[in-house]
Amino acid sequence: MSDAASQTSDPGRELVLTRLIDVPREKLYRAWTDPELLKQWFAPLPWTTTRAELDLRPGGGNLIVMRSPEGEEFPNRGIYLEIVENERLVFTDAYTSAWEPSAKPFMTAIITFEDEGGKTRYTARALHWTVEDRQAHESMGFHEGWGRCADQLAALAAKL
Amino acid sequence: MSDAASQTSDPGRELVLTRLIDVPREKLYRAWTDPELLKQWFAPLPWTTTRAELDLRPGGGNLIVMRSPEGEEFPNRGIYLEIVENERLVFTDAYTSAWEPSAKPFMTAIITFEDEGGKTRYTARALHWTVEDRQAHESMGFHEGWGRCADQLAALAAKL
Repeated sequence: MSDAASQTSDPGRELVLTRLIDVPREKLYRAWTDPELLKQWFAPLPWTTTRAELDLRPGGGNLIVMRSPEGEEFPNRGIYLEIVENERLVFTDAYTSAWEPSAKPFMTAIITFEDEGGKTRYTARALHWTVEDRQAHESMGFHEGWGRCADQLAALAAKL
Repeated sequence: MSDAASQTSDPGRELVLTRLIDVPREKLYRAWTDPELLKQWFAPLPWTTTRAELDLRPGGGNLIVMRSPEGEEFPNRGIYLEIVENERLVFTDAYTSAWEPSAKPFMTAIITFEDEGGKTRYTARALHWTVEDRQAHESMGFHEGWGRCADQLAALAAKL
């Protein structure tokens, strides 16, 4: 983890997934920001991503619809807070559009892509507003789910 | 109110204060963004503002300390989400720094400055995450407090 991440780390409210991936960070960033690519890795199989609309600017909205193996669809709406090309993406579900508060602010995600020994240090942090929400997210399978998605992301980006 | 404001208006969670002020919007914007000016109007007298640190960029923090007539200090920390010079400021207390969730996301403020018949339509909207928080803010004296501050702001800006 970077110093910046350590400084703001709050073990009580934060979940972190990190991977050293043997793919240039530009390709990982592209897989996060091109909707057609994102749909290919964002949901842990056999779940799928049926829709991805990404308005990549601070205040821009995103809508990602995931479909369960049983065919039920789950729309997720959020807002980008920060975009640094090939380095960093920050988004939250605290707003549904700029700046309409959501029914329940659950988390803010910080995705970072850093060069590390010729590979990419990929880190996904989920910062929650409460310890209870962090615990719920962990119980829902954060580490397994985000971990499998990171593997799918790495495999796809390696082919770009 | 502008169309944009009407479109996202949620009477259950929103409080709005608007004034037609006979001062160019550039001066009102300056009084909101220059810390030394902000300290002169931001708290309803006899309250004062003893400290104002404004990092004016999306993700930049602000710290504003208000002092009661009895000498008690109340620090308020937030984050700017959107900055459009002379037009629009958006900030929230949902984060204490970029992007550390605060203990309690209470509101997002949208301040707009629009030309209207040679004057400025000044609008301050407070969007809350819950109806209860909107009600609490209203009971705390939103309309009177923000209204008196708007008068102080108008008086100061007129002298710039």
